[in-house]
Amino acid sequence: MNIRTTAYDEMMAFQRQTEALAQVSGRLGWDQETMMPRGAVAQRAEESGAMEAVLHARRTDARLEGWLAEAEGSGAVAAANLRHIRRSFTRNSKVPSRLAEELARVTSASQGVWAEARASNDVAAFLPSLRRVIELRREEAACLAQGGNLYDALIDDYEPGATAASLGAMFDGMRPRLVELRGAVLEASYQPDSLEGRFDSVGQMRVARELATAFGYDWDRGRMDLAVHPFSSGGGSDARITTRVVENDPFNCFYSTIHEVGHACYELGIDKDYALTPLGAGVSMGVHESQSRIYENQLGRSRAFTGWLMSRMRSQFSDFNAKDVDAFYGTVNKVRAGYIRTEADEVQYNLHVMLRFDLERALISGDLGVADLESAWNDRFRADFGFGVDKPSNGVLQDVHWSVGLFGYFPTYSLGNLYAGCLNQALRKALPGLDAQLADGDTSAATAWLRDNVQRHGGLYEPREVIERACGFAPHEGPLLDYLEEKFRAIYRL
Amino acid sequence: MNIRTTAYDEMMAFQRQTEALAQVSGRLGWDQETMMPRGAVAQRAEESGAMEAVLHARRTDARLEGWLAEAEGSGAVAAANLRHIRRSFTRNSKVPSRLAEELARVTSASQGVWAEARASNDVAAFLPSLRRVIELRREEAACLAQGGNLYDALIDDYEPGATAASLGAMFDGMRPRLVELRGAVLEASYQPDSLEGRFDSVGQMRVARELATAFGYDWDRGRMDLAVHPFSSGGGSDARITTRVVENDPFNCFYSTIHEVGHACYELGIDKDYALTPLGAGVSMGVHESQSRIYENQLGRSRAFTGWLMSRMRSQFSDFNAKDVDAFYGTVNKVRAGYIRTEADEVQYNLHVMLRFDLERALISGDLGVADLESAWNDRFRADFGFGVDKPSNGVLQDVHWSVGLFGYFPTYSLGNLYAGCLNQALRKALPGLDAQLADGDTSAATAWLRDNVQRHGGLYEPREVIERACGFAPHEGPLLDYLEEKFRAIYRL
Repeated sequence: MNIRTTAYDEMMAFQRQTEALAQVSGRLGWDQETMMPRGAVAQRAEESGAMEAVLHARRTDARLEGWLAEAEGSGAVAAANLRHIRRSFTRNSKVPSRLAEELARVTSASQGVWAEARASNDVAAFLPSLRRVIELRREEAACLAQGGNLYDALIDDYEPGATAASLGAMFDGMRPRLVELRGAVLEASYQPDSLEGRFDSVGQMRVARELATAFGYDWDRGRMDLAVHPFSSGGGSDARITTRVVENDPFNCFYSTIHEVGHACYELGIDKDYALTPLGAGVSMGVHESQSRIYENQLGRSRAFTGWLMSRMRSQFSDFNAKDVDAFYGTVNKVRAGYIRTEADEVQYNLHVMLRFDLERALISGDLGVADLESAWNDRFRADFGFGVDKPSNGVLQDVHWSVGLFGYFPTYSLGNLYAGCLNQALRKALPGLDAQLADGDTSAATAWLRDNVQRHGGLYEPREVIERACGFAPHEGPLLDYLEEKFRAIYRL
Repeated sequence: MNIRTTAYDEMMAFQRQTEALAQVSGRLGWDQETMMPRGAVAQRAEESGAMEAVLHARRTDARLEGWLAEAEGSGAVAAANLRHIRRSFTRNSKVPSRLAEELARVTSASQGVWAEARASNDVAAFLPSLRRVIELRREEAACLAQGGNLYDALIDDYEPGATAASLGAMFDGMRPRLVELRGAVLEASYQPDSLEGRFDSVGQMRVARELATAFGYDWDRGRMDLAVHPFSSGGGSDARITTRVVENDPFNCFYSTIHEVGHACYELGIDKDYALTPLGAGVSMGVHESQSRIYENQLGRSRAFTGWLMSRMRSQFSDFNAKDVDAFYGTVNKVRAGYIRTEADEVQYNLHVMLRFDLERALISGDLGVADLESAWNDRFRADFGFGVDKPSNGVLQDVHWSVGLFGYFPTYSLGNLYAGCLNQALRKALPGLDAQLADGDTSAATAWLRDNVQRHGGLYEPREVIERACGFAPHEGPLLDYLEEKFRAIYRL
């Protein structure tokens, strides 16, 4: 028993250093997107590569195998730590380091090629890189799947326990009602006003900071900077967010901020005892997205909260159109025909994801070649959205994900939305007076409920399990669809 | 021959990754002083500790011993790389990793204790930490010296080839002429005006950026932020600087900026072929300081350049006293009685260093105990400067160095001044028209000379050798003292 305890303790001490190094690696990524001088790109690639090599060597360290064989801890925490470390060791050991390094190198270069191709709307310039990325990811998936489904093996990196089949069933359940709701809303005779006015960047950033504070962001353990594509980064006691400013579209800044605050609050809300252990980070991409989405949408885009936002905007900007709270609520939630996933509203967002899910499954299975990807995208987009893609940067080149090898990641966005719908139902039931609080800009009861029921657990439970425990029912698409139909039928007076 | 080439190439590939990781570790330090949220201190200590453990393991990796035994490269570059790697391996292998880790942990904590003790002027609160740091550094020095002089072993970390005896001889040569010059200047009947006026921080930062640009700082490979104590950080294609703003003392901001630009330009000026190799960084603290000092003092505080600075300040600040270029030159270079090393002028700076050099040698040899350090400091200060220390934060607690174990570092500041004096003599001889250029804010000829003769070599030559090659004579204190006497006798009309 003594020996077993020692093996566990030794392994956890080793793991603690690995987690600390992973934080360093994450900080390097943050620096790259916010602070790094532009001439440092090539050197940074070598620095990141060296960090990845160190991390990969630690995650496949031969001592882990011995410790895992010997270690036995008591209680749920130790069991969960063992589960995470075993999963990481098994996964990383299956991938030859030669392949891991080549993937890191190729995707780093490919991201630059994609960015240039997108800027010049030149799909052909991107295809050789994309082909190579897919080849390598298929090779990696084959190592991981060991005869099983390649795409499932990739999903497992982002959402342990999910499969193409389970995600496909989710989309099958969502699609008809979303398509119907979208059609009804776009054809409704009442249409909310678009936002008009001038919104200077200093004022936008001031409101963004108020919003982050209103959602309980801990400025002592984070900071906010500007980035081209907003993201959150880090965990433990250093979880940073970024936002962006578009002069004529302040909602872009405000809701990017709330979204990233949701991600950061998840990391910061985890039980402090789990810091720098496998339990000290968000458990999956889907659960992570459930937090960012419920902060952004179910809370941040609610009628109650948008009333408070309108008053904050009134005090910063003299000049914008909003007749009253109801009209402003409609403006915030206005559904528009559009090409871009990241700019999509709650009704259409998941349709964008479904398109990518189907195409990337076909790319990984080999049913779709990269030469046919653009036309497949354009055909599907016209079928789903009713109009054609005008240029590749509004179509197949719009997202960074595939260029950096993120296959199996997109569906976790919709899974997060589904989880957010379930959590919102449970939250509303637990906090019947919530709207009155949100109308005063007070999210504390809601964020405390999410912290207590979801965030604090970190990696203690499996992804679906943490949602089910919080909600008291197995997660399904019903609550999200009910919420969307009720909300948008009211806004559009249907 | 083939095998030997392979050993060298393998070693260099390994070393390249180590250098990249060292850059990451440096970036983490930069982040800590500029960007890190204050609540992240404890986690950051673990992150930095984990990085140090990785670096120490690589620097003592058993494969290095084999490679070093087998490797043989042709030419000066390979020989220099082998010399650096051998020195690093030998040095790091002599120190047990237990001791290295304890030093890292103790000095990290000790810095916090020092900062609090300085803030509350409580020397006694700092002494237990300092005692422990000195114990550990003595233990480390004993491992390194293997029977030789302990303090010499510590100097070698910062200035390979220098010894307490050689530095003591340097100070013996400088001291009488500096003491005499200081006395003459402080007692002179003519005294330059002090600067008066208001200098808003936006204007200071604007001038600081102009100054950095004027000295050739490459903004594509660096950036400037604010820090409590200005520093420079990083190398290769990412060398960042920091500065600070004191509202009523803009020279603090301007000359901190030029100083750090000198350090950064050294790193950025190194031959690009040496990037991420042992030759790709400044060769010693003394040579590094020679660059920061010649940028700051011999160029930046010259009569010609201060004339240009006055015109830049005139365009930013409406309200300050400067009758003419000569009066302003005197104001910039005004010699004042003062307690603080980092605020000292060119005449008195090295006297501050000598005080520390003598005290820290005594601390390391054991001739001086920490209980007697404060009175020893105060006695020596009164003897050298003619007035008493008013409070510990102006005396023994003013510098961070000892709290983090930097013993043997202080004398490299004066060595850098000495080297700057030598380089200035050679530079002025090579560029007779320099003052006319500096008067226009054009430092390009001077910085190009320094880049070609000093900076580009990186770690190719030993420290003294690189200065001797640049100057054409063995470095000695004469040129610095001649320069100081001529400059300050003219300003003070002696």
